[in-house]
Amino acid sequence: MSDVSSVADRLHSASIHLLRRVRKEDEASGLSPARLSALSVVVFAGPLSLGRLAAAEQVRPPTMTHIVSALEDDGLVSRQPSTHDRRSVVVAATPKGTRLLQRARARRVDALVELLGSVEGEEMATLANAADILERVLGR
Amino acid sequence: MSDVSSVADRLHSASIHLLRRVRKEDEASGLSPARLSALSVVVFAGPLSLGRLAAAEQVRPPTMTHIVSALEDDGLVSRQPSTHDRRSVVVAATPKGTRLLQRARARRVDALVELLGSVEGEEMATLANAADILERVLGR
Repeated sequence: MSDVSSVADRLHSASIHLLRRVRKEDEASGLSPARLSALSVVVFAGPLSLGRLAAAEQVRPPTMTHIVSALEDDGLVSRQPSTHDRRSVVVAATPKGTRLLQRARARRVDALVELLGSVEGEEMATLANAADILERVLGR
Repeated sequence: MSDVSSVADRLHSASIHLLRRVRKEDEASGLSPARLSALSVVVFAGPLSLGRLAAAEQVRPPTMTHIVSALEDDGLVSRQPSTHDRRSVVVAATPKGTRLLQRARARRVDALVELLGSVEGEEMATLANAADILERVLGR
């Protein structure tokens, strides 16, 4: 395995383990993982069509229709006519949905802060640099 | 937001974006995200009981029963008596399931190698160090 492959493999594992650890906090949101994940996409990438949302979450459109209806029943998202094409409909987060998502994200970040408790200054700088490099490379 | 909170927030975002980018490769596996994810837990953490597998995947046990049955029909996992308690049953990966998962993982790592193409030596060392720090902190 080349050096780059080894780094890629370890970053991939670290990302999986990081998210597995912090997502335990999501239970406090009261939403299932599928609903919270869809809400997250709507908050950060929306408003967007149901088709694009299904593609982003890699589920079939009927599954996403079911998820969006449940989020709508909870007052967390609403369906609106698209500003680009009034005949099409997009899913948008409500203020309540945005607040719920922000609280869920803050709980994850707090949990990660706790996990990072033993990390000293120089290593913390390494992690900060790595986050910057990854965000640049991933083109967000 | 404190420095540590900021680093935690950026690492959390970077991990999400990294996995969103590479998981597109999973389609080539022919398995749905839910089935591939469950298979991954069985391969890396198994053999394990259906209850533990459901907890790890944060789905209800009946949902996991459905996923495991589908994986079993595809010959990717098998149910076996536990070696600790012959009355209980654990889910184990078959050689076919392990091979499928390893190929899926290799496709993700290859995609990440490509994304890391523009990263120079010193930055690559930063990413490698960050992966080591995270794996230590996350206790794997």
